[in-house]
Amino acid sequence: MPDYKAPLKEINFVLNEVLDVNAHYESLEGAEDLTPDLLSAIIEGGAQFAEGVAAPCNRDGDEIGCTWSPEGVTTPPGYKEAYQQFVEGGWPSLSGDPEFGGQGLPSSIAVFINEMTGSANWAWSMYPGLSHGAVATVDEHGSPAQKAAYLPKLLEGTWTGTMCLTEPHCGSDLGMLRTKAVKNADGTYAITGTKIFISSGEHDMAENIVHMVIARVEGAPEGTKGISLFIVPKVNVDAEGNLLDRNGVSCGSIEHKMGIHGNSTCVMNFDSAKGVLVGEGAENIGLRQMFTFMNAARLGTATQGLSHGEAAFQGGLAYAKERLQMRSLTGPKNPDGPADPIIVHPDVRRMLLTQKSLVEASRVLVYWCATLVDKTELGKTEEERKEADGMLAFLTPIAKAFITETGFENANIGVQLLGGHGFIREHGMEQIVRDARISMLYEGTTGIQALDLIGRKVLGTGGTALMNFTKVVHEFAKANDTEAMAPYLTPLKAINKQWGELTMQIGAAAGENPDEAGSASVDYLMYSGYAVFAYIWAKMAKVAQDKLEAGEGDAAYYEAKLKTANFYFSRILPRTESLATTMVSGADVLMAMDEEEFYF
Amino acid sequence: MPDYKAPLKEINFVLNEVLDVNAHYESLEGAEDLTPDLLSAIIEGGAQFAEGVAAPCNRDGDEIGCTWSPEGVTTPPGYKEAYQQFVEGGWPSLSGDPEFGGQGLPSSIAVFINEMTGSANWAWSMYPGLSHGAVATVDEHGSPAQKAAYLPKLLEGTWTGTMCLTEPHCGSDLGMLRTKAVKNADGTYAITGTKIFISSGEHDMAENIVHMVIARVEGAPEGTKGISLFIVPKVNVDAEGNLLDRNGVSCGSIEHKMGIHGNSTCVMNFDSAKGVLVGEGAENIGLRQMFTFMNAARLGTATQGLSHGEAAFQGGLAYAKERLQMRSLTGPKNPDGPADPIIVHPDVRRMLLTQKSLVEASRVLVYWCATLVDKTELGKTEEERKEADGMLAFLTPIAKAFITETGFENANIGVQLLGGHGFIREHGMEQIVRDARISMLYEGTTGIQALDLIGRKVLGTGGTALMNFTKVVHEFAKANDTEAMAPYLTPLKAINKQWGELTMQIGAAAGENPDEAGSASVDYLMYSGYAVFAYIWAKMAKVAQDKLEAGEGDAAYYEAKLKTANFYFSRILPRTESLATTMVSGADVLMAMDEEEFYF
Repeated sequence: MPDYKAPLKEINFVLNEVLDVNAHYESLEGAEDLTPDLLSAIIEGGAQFAEGVAAPCNRDGDEIGCTWSPEGVTTPPGYKEAYQQFVEGGWPSLSGDPEFGGQGLPSSIAVFINEMTGSANWAWSMYPGLSHGAVATVDEHGSPAQKAAYLPKLLEGTWTGTMCLTEPHCGSDLGMLRTKAVKNADGTYAITGTKIFISSGEHDMAENIVHMVIARVEGAPEGTKGISLFIVPKVNVDAEGNLLDRNGVSCGSIEHKMGIHGNSTCVMNFDSAKGVLVGEGAENIGLRQMFTFMNAARLGTATQGLSHGEAAFQGGLAYAKERLQMRSLTGPKNPDGPADPIIVHPDVRRMLLTQKSLVEASRVLVYWCATLVDKTELGKTEEERKEADGMLAFLTPIAKAFITETGFENANIGVQLLGGHGFIREHGMEQIVRDARISMLYEGTTGIQALDLIGRKVLGTGGTALMNFTKVVHEFAKANDTEAMAPYLTPLKAINKQWGELTMQIGAAAGENPDEAGSASVDYLMYSGYAVFAYIWAKMAKVAQDKLEAGEGDAAYYEAKLKTANFYFSRILPRTESLATTMVSGADVLMAMDEEEFYF
Repeated sequence: MPDYKAPLKEINFVLNEVLDVNAHYESLEGAEDLTPDLLSAIIEGGAQFAEGVAAPCNRDGDEIGCTWSPEGVTTPPGYKEAYQQFVEGGWPSLSGDPEFGGQGLPSSIAVFINEMTGSANWAWSMYPGLSHGAVATVDEHGSPAQKAAYLPKLLEGTWTGTMCLTEPHCGSDLGMLRTKAVKNADGTYAITGTKIFISSGEHDMAENIVHMVIARVEGAPEGTKGISLFIVPKVNVDAEGNLLDRNGVSCGSIEHKMGIHGNSTCVMNFDSAKGVLVGEGAENIGLRQMFTFMNAARLGTATQGLSHGEAAFQGGLAYAKERLQMRSLTGPKNPDGPADPIIVHPDVRRMLLTQKSLVEASRVLVYWCATLVDKTELGKTEEERKEADGMLAFLTPIAKAFITETGFENANIGVQLLGGHGFIREHGMEQIVRDARISMLYEGTTGIQALDLIGRKVLGTGGTALMNFTKVVHEFAKANDTEAMAPYLTPLKAINKQWGELTMQIGAAAGENPDEAGSASVDYLMYSGYAVFAYIWAKMAKVAQDKLEAGEGDAAYYEAKLKTANFYFSRILPRTESLATTMVSGADVLMAMDEEEFYF
């Protein structure tokens, strides 16, 4: 992997100038301690950890990977030590409840840190990442006793967590799950079944692993109505969180994968393992509870697209500045050298600016979603919390699918920029592609996110969720209607209007034939992503214009922002033109083919 | 890798019904022996070899790969034996000159076989593939003595060939090459230098390896004007092709790569190795000679996009028919099962039809180019040969870049269709992605092809090459102007017209500023690919309509062709809308950013 350097200037620009997070934190209940100085110190600490601790074991993580034995899983060299430093630095507890040893900071902080550790070493960052989901779920749905028993060690980091959903025959369709739970006399349950694709399911970095497991209680209704959520620790614990005997959970094997070799992807066997229902004992409410960590995981996966995009951009840019090959068509730019650096060539710049414009907008969207999570948790009024929740529900599938799809595009551009060298392992660029490839698959594929967006979020709210967003855009455009902003606002307003029209057209068609929604879904999602990014780039352009006009800060930096915005509106946003055509081309063209006609 | 089944029905459709190859072979000089029955037997033999011999060692090729030692390179288990069977079957000599032991068939035959062996095992197929380029070069440019010494063994397959171009500091920019050639007293040359990325550069499958090496003779002009091409065998040979002493060529190491692990990618060290100038002794004409194998290699790489697209489609389709997950939105389609097969879902069909429509058109384009190569070699009149040469020159960069780009898209769809399982090695789908990734890099990256297309081929001919193509389309549309064909011809005529207009617009801009061509280049190439495929799909639709009208053949097959054509025109061709906008958005937006402004 190319040397990773945390993009602190970019991170601070988004936090302070685009999202104004200090005002945001001041507006939250109980976030008074998070001063600008503290925020800055945390982010710099995270940068040091990412660059100095997570990055150095990234290559071994890929080359050596995890190894399985009947006794457990050994993580790659350096992983355990890096995790130990992470724990010693107090990183797992940043946003935890102070009652259980947490530092009580808003949860968005973890997202900013996660971008950096993720760029440095995604496979490693998944171990603490999965814990985060387990903590959030116990925190939100657990009983007081469960919180007391599990949260302190999870927040400390001496234990880690997982989510156990997928089974061999069911991934997207969890209603088919077979893992069963039989109630024991003491109120606990005996969990039996096999779960697959369990990230961080078994490893050597923590004393205990707390599995959040969905299963079906004997006699429960069929389908998703009969799902219950259990806490099933690797080692049983008492009320104070002391370790007792080993539970009936074991890792049967680990998968050999395309990428993220440093993370153990486990087949987990539950053999009458002792589990407790999350909460006060209500069965069959597991699907709703599960969405707490699923939503966190989706936002975490969006971060992966950002992290890998940034890493690929850094590697590609460094090479483009160094590699001498051919002369500029407009005359030598490096006349004393044997050739010009390839960054002089227009198509190389097109690739770099594609990365730059997508990565920088991805950062804004991910961080924005993170602040919305803060608001749902710590907003001072019910109305504020509800509004944030609605916006977050709308943006989550877009962030997850669009940022991972464009993140994968960026990863591939990184390889392309290096030419044949990009294909060679030692340069590290191809690892980014392999590591990034999973992001469009796990936590709900792009197709699943697209159905969630158009079905549940947009058509399912009668269009309200979309209108809440387009209203924000509309108001932004109205408030900043200057001549200088016209190059951005004119296309933004057009896309904002077209987005609504296309939605109505699809909604009307889907009313007649539900397959019309499925036919449009992925194109609609990608279109929505470009539309959201258009708003984000217009917003960044406005910040840059204001700073330049006021003569504040680094003028070259703000000029670069405007140039990147220009690129986005000229070369990227027009991708919506094709999508606008194809998404409404109708389901017939897809459904007409008989199953046997696909191949002869 | 999923079980590979050679798509014989598709191959025969393209050969007999779309391209009418029997008439084509009859029109060639000296291809009288190639009867329809013989052609059919060869293709079936190739299918058996691909399915039964090449495919079974594909997975080991990836998992075990090649191993290097100072003594040489050991290929993966089964590779050597498969190659032995290839040689025994007479496959290397199919299109060779009978004077040197070849079977005298037109060279297109090798392309059809290569699609199948390539789908089954691309890394393996590169060993004979590279030989093919060496044979073509010696055949076209070699002296009679060189042909006599090298061709018999190369055609027999007991020797293989390579092309040695790239050096550590130069890939795209071969004018910078440093490998030097010093003339010996006996007229041979001493070659010294290091070449990298040499596919099949060293291995254990053949008695000798014949390297085609570019180097600079002492005192030669700078840049590409001073390139000479040499034959440098691993083991020196006498005039009759008997092996003599070992030459000063050795493999210093092999690369660890993202994919094609079964093919040895070698660092080749030439240490005063003995080489002979290709031909009658003229120095500094190597660049022109090199283009013989470069063009063959580019067409071979286009085939890789086709091969991998087909393999990914087969694997994805099999899974989509088997995997049960969720119910169709329009009601259960498999009411007796626990869920419906995922092929009922519109978005799954969108992915499969994307693969199908791109793969089937790719096959036509690759095979069409192959017949054009035949015509350049065996056309009966100078005019015929020249016309074919012009069309081939125009289509080669499109075929190379567009088919590999869409082949990579198809490979990734293959993974996506399998969901999380697509990321797991044992399913074989992720290997296709890793193997396919190199295709957009070697033999000239997509960016290099795009510059070749817009610069040399289109603007460099004053637009003639494009007009020769659009005339073919125009005449096809005029000759088939029926109501039934309107759904295909209307968009085809529109794209054909727009293509010319965009070209003129770019040409005018590039006249003012050469960077405008580079700015447009890749979008222009991709647009051109979709335009060529539109013509191909219209042609296939016409064949299908005629057969259906005449009541000939398998009606369901021709119906499926029309449905796939409908899909292409509805969902894929509209991608040109965005490209038409972005390609003419101007170089300023790319060139405005100062080098230092890309990152702060």
